Amino acid sequence: MKLLRVCMKHRSVGFVDIPEKYRLLGGRALTSSIICDEVDPKCHPLGPNNKLVFAPGLVTGTVAPSSGRLSVGGKSPLTGTIKESNAGGIPAQMLARLGIKAIIVEDQPDDDEMYILKIDASGAELLPAGDLAGKGMYEFNSLVRDRYGKGTGIIAIGPAGEMKLLNAGISCNDMENGPGRYAGRGGLGAVMGSKGLKAIIVIEDEKRRVPIANKELFDKGRKKLTDALTSHDVTSNALTNYGTAVLINIMNEAGGLPTRNFSAGRFEGAAKISGEAINETTGKRGGVGKTGHPCHPGCVIRCSNVWAKPDGSYHVAPIEYESDWALGANCGIDDLDVIAELNYICNDTGLDTIEAGCTLAVAMEAGLAEFGDGQKAIELLREVGKGTPLGRILGNGTEFTAKAFGVTRCPTVKGQSMPAYEPRAVKGIGVTYATTTMGADHTAGYTIAPEILKVGGDVDPATTEKAELARAFQATTVFIDTAGYCLFIAFAILDIPEGFEGMVETVNGVLGTNWTTDDVTRLGLEWLKREREFNEAAGFTKADDRLPEFMRYEELPPHNTVWDVPDEILDAVHDYEVEDKAERAG
Amino acid sequence: MKLLRVCMKHRSVGFVDIPEKYRLLGGRALTSSIICDEVDPKCHPLGPNNKLVFAPGLVTGTVAPSSGRLSVGGKSPLTGTIKESNAGGIPAQMLARLGIKAIIVEDQPDDDEMYILKIDASGAELLPAGDLAGKGMYEFNSLVRDRYGKGTGIIAIGPAGEMKLLNAGISCNDMENGPGRYAGRGGLGAVMGSKGLKAIIVIEDEKRRVPIANKELFDKGRKKLTDALTSHDVTSNALTNYGTAVLINIMNEAGGLPTRNFSAGRFEGAAKISGEAINETTGKRGGVGKTGHPCHPGCVIRCSNVWAKPDGSYHVAPIEYESDWALGANCGIDDLDVIAELNYICNDTGLDTIEAGCTLAVAMEAGLAEFGDGQKAIELLREVGKGTPLGRILGNGTEFTAKAFGVTRCPTVKGQSMPAYEPRAVKGIGVTYATTTMGADHTAGYTIAPEILKVGGDVDPATTEKAELARAFQATTVFIDTAGYCLFIAFAILDIPEGFEGMVETVNGVLGTNWTTDDVTRLGLEWLKREREFNEAAGFTKADDRLPEFMRYEELPPHNTVWDVPDEILDAVHDYEVEDKAERAG
Repeated sequence: MKLLRVCMKHRSVGFVDIPEKYRLLGGRALTSSIICDEVDPKCHPLGPNNKLVFAPGLVTGTVAPSSGRLSVGGKSPLTGTIKESNAGGIPAQMLARLGIKAIIVEDQPDDDEMYILKIDASGAELLPAGDLAGKGMYEFNSLVRDRYGKGTGIIAIGPAGEMKLLNAGISCNDMENGPGRYAGRGGLGAVMGSKGLKAIIVIEDEKRRVPIANKELFDKGRKKLTDALTSHDVTSNALTNYGTAVLINIMNEAGGLPTRNFSAGRFEGAAKISGEAINETTGKRGGVGKTGHPCHPGCVIRCSNVWAKPDGSYHVAPIEYESDWALGANCGIDDLDVIAELNYICNDTGLDTIEAGCTLAVAMEAGLAEFGDGQKAIELLREVGKGTPLGRILGNGTEFTAKAFGVTRCPTVKGQSMPAYEPRAVKGIGVTYATTTMGADHTAGYTIAPEILKVGGDVDPATTEKAELARAFQATTVFIDTAGYCLFIAFAILDIPEGFEGMVETVNGVLGTNWTTDDVTRLGLEWLKREREFNEAAGFTKADDRLPEFMRYEELPPHNTVWDVPDEILDAVHDYEVEDKAERAG
Repeated sequence: MKLLRVCMKHRSVGFVDIPEKYRLLGGRALTSSIICDEVDPKCHPLGPNNKLVFAPGLVTGTVAPSSGRLSVGGKSPLTGTIKESNAGGIPAQMLARLGIKAIIVEDQPDDDEMYILKIDASGAELLPAGDLAGKGMYEFNSLVRDRYGKGTGIIAIGPAGEMKLLNAGISCNDMENGPGRYAGRGGLGAVMGSKGLKAIIVIEDEKRRVPIANKELFDKGRKKLTDALTSHDVTSNALTNYGTAVLINIMNEAGGLPTRNFSAGRFEGAAKISGEAINETTGKRGGVGKTGHPCHPGCVIRCSNVWAKPDGSYHVAPIEYESDWALGANCGIDDLDVIAELNYICNDTGLDTIEAGCTLAVAMEAGLAEFGDGQKAIELLREVGKGTPLGRILGNGTEFTAKAFGVTRCPTVKGQSMPAYEPRAVKGIGVTYATTTMGADHTAGYTIAPEILKVGGDVDPATTEKAELARAFQATTVFIDTAGYCLFIAFAILDIPEGFEGMVETVNGVLGTNWTTDDVTRLGLEWLKREREFNEAAGFTKADDRLPEFMRYEELPPHNTVWDVPDEILDAVHDYEVEDKAERAG
């Protein structure tokens, strides 16, 4: 395995050996370590001194189930913090099999040209993007397939990234060559755009193998994990049959589905946009629509879907819970075809759907459209790709749009929009939003599992004592993100100890290590600590680990609760020594 | 003297006694103390829990020379820090003579209506703004004079403030009822707009007197200070005859006049926009144009001016150095009539000219206009008042505009634009920009005096050892801002010890205190410390006390220097104990 260094200023590429300190790292731990080691925390995120790192997980590229994640890291222009965002799709496994542990993209060109990094078994080279620059993602992916062949891995930015908009994500192509698998959060697409890199194209002429130090142990672990995933109800039934949008009805029932820009926790149109509705409609319409579809080869959960138009032809893939909610309930929109079109525009323009939906909702609150007006929402979102002043406002995300129009109900933490779980209804996820190293992010510590789904425990969502819970979830998550597993394996391994062991054993199998299940938290906390140190050097303090003020004084229907988690609990999440002392005293 | 509390939610007003802790405070020390005591540092600046405080200085309203300043304080929506911005004009003295030590505006209306606070000798009341809402400042001031009489004091916001744009300032009317005297910095006009307060109107039926505890001491001090001001060359000649724009040629000569969005330190068109040119043109054109004009009664410096159109009719007042530079050299514009028109638009829309000029320059860098294209600059600036998406981008200031268009050469500190002194050419002012409690601000510690003007010492602008200098200037400034004196008295009192004594004696005269000249620094540091504590609680750290990254790697012509002041020096400015130890060790 090698590191691939790419200097955009001099348009040079070079493979280098992996330093010992990075040997046992992959995915998020590797992207964050490289950023911490090489990037000045005070640099301008879109200037020459930020770097963009791509790294497959430790087991990515092997036959371990549901492990095809690609981590992308850098200093985020949206949050100002360190950022790791990961995605499925096909390129991660291809990079790993080509022996690439990480790609480090540095500096920026002196001109305004866009380039493409082409990687294959013979090496890597930078090519002018030429007519591929400026293209929307659907056309781009299609042109790349025509020119480089079917099965080409594509990691790319749309017009939003080229315009360096703060809500620009980075797309990985899925198994049908669609651009819907996004490392979306934190505006890393703008960093890629600032470096003049339109895309990384990965061509795998021959299938190589990721080196595995202890094949026997790896196989043992893989089997345990696969058994857990195929036996747990969430990972073998709920997600598989209804996709992630199975959560719409569940969160709505819990009164925690943010509605109309976080002004309510229950949406009267929820059933119409639920996973059940997606499954039903997809079945009825026929054609290419389907549920129970993997986003990358080797996924046993298969929570992805393809949404078809009424005539059965392709519309968009996937409609995830987060997109469905953000572009639906949070905008008061209850029409799946409208949501699909908004989702398509996000995929094509290169936008994170969570941020885009929250932005639209704030724009609606500002009076640019009525809540529920899907056609106007589509018009507004199309502005982004056009690069008009209004498009630039909306393309820069929720907090930017709120400032542009003087809206104070702005559901962000550290500048990043909250996902589809209302912290006033589910306190633990609010603790996660407030205290992650990356702004509001459910995937950084998914306490919804025990609080709502009763997976991995049964925790009352209304109680505020969630510091330990949030910390434990954040630590475990870093390990999963580092291994390259999809976060959804957590549902199974939290309930089935053998699955958890299996995960660790696959990692040990690849690396030749002897990590135990206890090491997962220890390593996770260690890696989190580095990320926090970066943020501290960038100027972040505990005072930034807070939810927006309005949640403290606006009661959320239907439970009419406010955000009442004391600051001391938020501070305790990462204040291990204080917490330890308190525990000993208690 | 009383405090006037105004609750915008319940539309109630009430005079209350002054708490003992505020008795010896006025101006900035009072606004900042009230904000520190009553505002949650983590509140949304445009939400119900921010407050807006207006306070005349301690000697304002007396016959002390050049002392007619009004401090306005709050949490800034532009910077997120505590903020005090002060202005001349006529209302400050009127408020003081009416016995008002401070006005505290709280909460916000439940509706979107705008209101006017009317204050006279009989009390205060809130009135619906009615047809006065939405008006540009020139028309507004004119209508208020028609309805309430000549000599009415007006503190008001233009359309920018009503739209809650981050570059909205608060206007105080001048002696000709023009709106050109702005508490411009930090977006406090947006706070006023968020509270639904279009204006404060002050009517003085009879002239009362500000209470003076020791008349004899006050008179002694006043005479000493007046003697200093009328004998020092800067305050009796340079500023009086050429206005503040006398600095254009001086800073250009020094290579420290930021040009074309801080890409050079010398402007080939400087002479055409200099104070000398203003003086000459004003003399030639005749009509209402003039220099050597006071901005409020009782100013002996008289650095203000009125700019006339070629036909001698009124165009705008004043053209200050900062406005002249920001809208001129920094945009590559060398035509005073264009600058005057841009200045007029700022005054009418309710914008800070420094922020507006830096914003235009960033927009030019983004390609929205060529540098030097005055007509296009006028068109762009007019968008703000129209409230178009482009107008909202530009009206939200430099950093917002830079983000909207992906520009990394963004000359801001803590979100606020740098004034007219290039830190790469004059290091001490850069130390001030980085370390003030309020973002980039020359008036927070004007080290240009010794570094360039050789007033109050002779310090090489190129050296980096400026921690003590910046600290001393920042401390003294807080005292001057608290007394209600115009900062320009500093030129005289730094060189003439009797003038400095005189300033302190006038304050002692009013309050009955026995402060010495040594107490000026002690009190200034004490008051600064409280401001810094507010900022720390809001989440600011030393990592925020930095200049933008591009200044570290882009060399500034003509001297081809970069910003090379070590972080340790910046940190030492407010790290008194560390500094003290170092001094003792050294």
